[in-house]
Amino acid sequence: MWHTAVEVIRSKRDGHRLSREDIRWVVDAYTRGEVAEEQMSALAMAVLLRGMDARETADWTRAMVDSGRTVDLGGLGRPTVDKHSTGGVGDKVTLALTPLVAACGAAVPQLSGRGLGHTGGTLDKLESIPGWRCRMSDERMWHALQEVGAVIRAADDRIAPADRKLYALRDVTATVESVPLIAGSIMSKKIAEGTAALVLDVKCGSGAFMKDRRRAGELAETLISLGAATGVRTSALLTDMDVPLGENVGNSLEVAEAVRVLRGEGPADVTELTLALAREMLALCGLDDTDPAEKLVSGAAYRTWRDLVRVQGGDPDAALEAAAHVHTLHAPRAGFVTGPDAHSVGVAARRLGAGRLRREDAVRPGAGVRCLAKRGDRVAEGDPVLELHTDEPEAVEDAVRLLEGAYGITDSPGETRPVVLEHRSGVSER
Amino acid sequence: MWHTAVEVIRSKRDGHRLSREDIRWVVDAYTRGEVAEEQMSALAMAVLLRGMDARETADWTRAMVDSGRTVDLGGLGRPTVDKHSTGGVGDKVTLALTPLVAACGAAVPQLSGRGLGHTGGTLDKLESIPGWRCRMSDERMWHALQEVGAVIRAADDRIAPADRKLYALRDVTATVESVPLIAGSIMSKKIAEGTAALVLDVKCGSGAFMKDRRRAGELAETLISLGAATGVRTSALLTDMDVPLGENVGNSLEVAEAVRVLRGEGPADVTELTLALAREMLALCGLDDTDPAEKLVSGAAYRTWRDLVRVQGGDPDAALEAAAHVHTLHAPRAGFVTGPDAHSVGVAARRLGAGRLRREDAVRPGAGVRCLAKRGDRVAEGDPVLELHTDEPEAVEDAVRLLEGAYGITDSPGETRPVVLEHRSGVSER
Repeated sequence: MWHTAVEVIRSKRDGHRLSREDIRWVVDAYTRGEVAEEQMSALAMAVLLRGMDARETADWTRAMVDSGRTVDLGGLGRPTVDKHSTGGVGDKVTLALTPLVAACGAAVPQLSGRGLGHTGGTLDKLESIPGWRCRMSDERMWHALQEVGAVIRAADDRIAPADRKLYALRDVTATVESVPLIAGSIMSKKIAEGTAALVLDVKCGSGAFMKDRRRAGELAETLISLGAATGVRTSALLTDMDVPLGENVGNSLEVAEAVRVLRGEGPADVTELTLALAREMLALCGLDDTDPAEKLVSGAAYRTWRDLVRVQGGDPDAALEAAAHVHTLHAPRAGFVTGPDAHSVGVAARRLGAGRLRREDAVRPGAGVRCLAKRGDRVAEGDPVLELHTDEPEAVEDAVRLLEGAYGITDSPGETRPVVLEHRSGVSER
Repeated sequence: MWHTAVEVIRSKRDGHRLSREDIRWVVDAYTRGEVAEEQMSALAMAVLLRGMDARETADWTRAMVDSGRTVDLGGLGRPTVDKHSTGGVGDKVTLALTPLVAACGAAVPQLSGRGLGHTGGTLDKLESIPGWRCRMSDERMWHALQEVGAVIRAADDRIAPADRKLYALRDVTATVESVPLIAGSIMSKKIAEGTAALVLDVKCGSGAFMKDRRRAGELAETLISLGAATGVRTSALLTDMDVPLGENVGNSLEVAEAVRVLRGEGPADVTELTLALAREMLALCGLDDTDPAEKLVSGAAYRTWRDLVRVQGGDPDAALEAAAHVHTLHAPRAGFVTGPDAHSVGVAARRLGAGRLRREDAVRPGAGVRCLAKRGDRVAEGDPVLELHTDEPEAVEDAVRLLEGAYGITDSPGETRPVVLEHRSGVSER
């Protein structure tokens, strides 16, 4: 057994393609604990440095899926479609997008996570709604998808357990940043959750995992090819993450902003991105004659949001928790705002209590940063630019230091930059 | 802690040089168990694929040494010098060379191992001498080095424990074949054992770890530079390992052949290599006016061997264990022998019981192969060419199959090839 694992590692180390049998064997044996953690980490490093081609990545993904159970949503009576974001500062899009697309007639079987980001993950954000529960039986999920058309729940241990185990390993062995491994991890969970179509929001910029557009494009192409190879209709938007998305960065702060989007009162950039992703999702699942913007205006999307909150045990009318202290940064002079830099805002939000550094940390629901003016906005001297929300007054000084260099005031408005940078669908556009 | 380990792995993964502080920290934390096995294996794979330069390799080696204790042989009154071989089939040189160089006035503080090779390691071979003990206190070692000038003992757990731990890890993670890691592993044990000078026997050919001469040369140069950087006078011989060295491959079989060398009756190739290495060792420790060949002729080397056996608890006059069964392969026609191929002879010897596949396997003292005719030797039809020695008659069939393709008979003697292919000393010859 040891011997076989060593042969597989050596093969990838020396730049060879792994066979389907090798990949299935190593993932399966790793899931069962017969391939040791130290062997898988050596293999992950070899994959990171030597790469995997499209066929290997598809085989790897399929092996991850087959390490656990898959949900079959075939008999649902609604077309299924989902969205995955590579993550960014202020990215609360899932919260508004999921009920919006459901209101248009699709079923969105979103499996989500907590993450180690600048704020909590989607699940942490939703848990700032009193009563909301992320864990849900298959029967309740089926009911929610049929009646409401949406569910946002936590992946259980039986969904792609190999991926879960490998993700924790990659985190401590500097093997996260491998495009084939990232793609396989994303796609295996989406295949297992049962969605037939998937839209990717691949972010690039200072606040994103992928800092530059070339790498973001590479990940998008890999995921689109992988979708084609594994039978999930997949397309991608490359979107900007140099400044935070929308105004609010935090947990309950982001829920509140998502509700504004659903009522047609959201910040322009979040609303624009939510609608662009909704149109892409609807196109992929054959519902492109429905206009999602109309569902915002009519109140249908907001009603679906309230149904979604209720079906997951939450109270849509309950007040959200707010932070105990708010500190405001003001414009030192009149002019046009530059920034704020997404990465700095993210780090400040985490410092204020919105995110976690270690898996066992708790997040503070009300903590975070509000960006009252962003890139290109005109301000007068003394106008509020940033609000710091926290329960820990001793964190304010650090956060102010982080944020003071994160924005500027200039005399000209500068170039405007769209939120959606690029649309990709199908390998032929490569 | 986790975080720091990830940063070090990432740095090497991305092709950067590791600082001395990073290297010392990671080796030290690994020794204490604070850097996990899976993190070290990812780092080892990154080192294998990205390399380490001379400065990094020296820092790595020094950190390995400092993970344990070092022996100080400064007050011994004899110059210290040792030899390391990268290993080959029939390589019993340590057994004859150590007393020979001691007979010339040096002290040889050989630390040796068991290995997972085709035969047992040097320690296994010596243990076929009744009474021989490989474990020895520092006091006894000091006595042996002063009185006899030689000792061949097992490394204890306190010598370079980081290397011991890492070696076991590399074995199961396909990270053995890294020149800087190989060099660091060899040199750290030699520095810790206290030798002031070191001669390397770097073998290349079918029966060697390094199959080709370019890689063997690379390892030799790395070790010579590393010796210069760590204060051990180091030179290297590149030697042939396409055919087994000498006649006998096994454990007691090799001891018997080493005794023949010490009595001046050994096969020409082993005797030639032993003398070449002895001259190199004597040159490095300032004893180059002594002729080792004269010590073979005079019987002085053989007397030192008998002293060495006695000081390690053995009986130099005891009969060595022989195998129960001997099977002979004969020349099918008259002509000149080609081969036998070193690798095939090694695999056959292991099959006959001379070596181990797993660390917990025992070796059979008497098992092995005798090469009665080798490359260029003239034979008549029916002359014995190979003898198979074993206690397991059921292994003979497999071994015969392995050996039948390992040699041939031709009409011309072919080219002769020297045992010593090249001499290297000092970086300037690179």
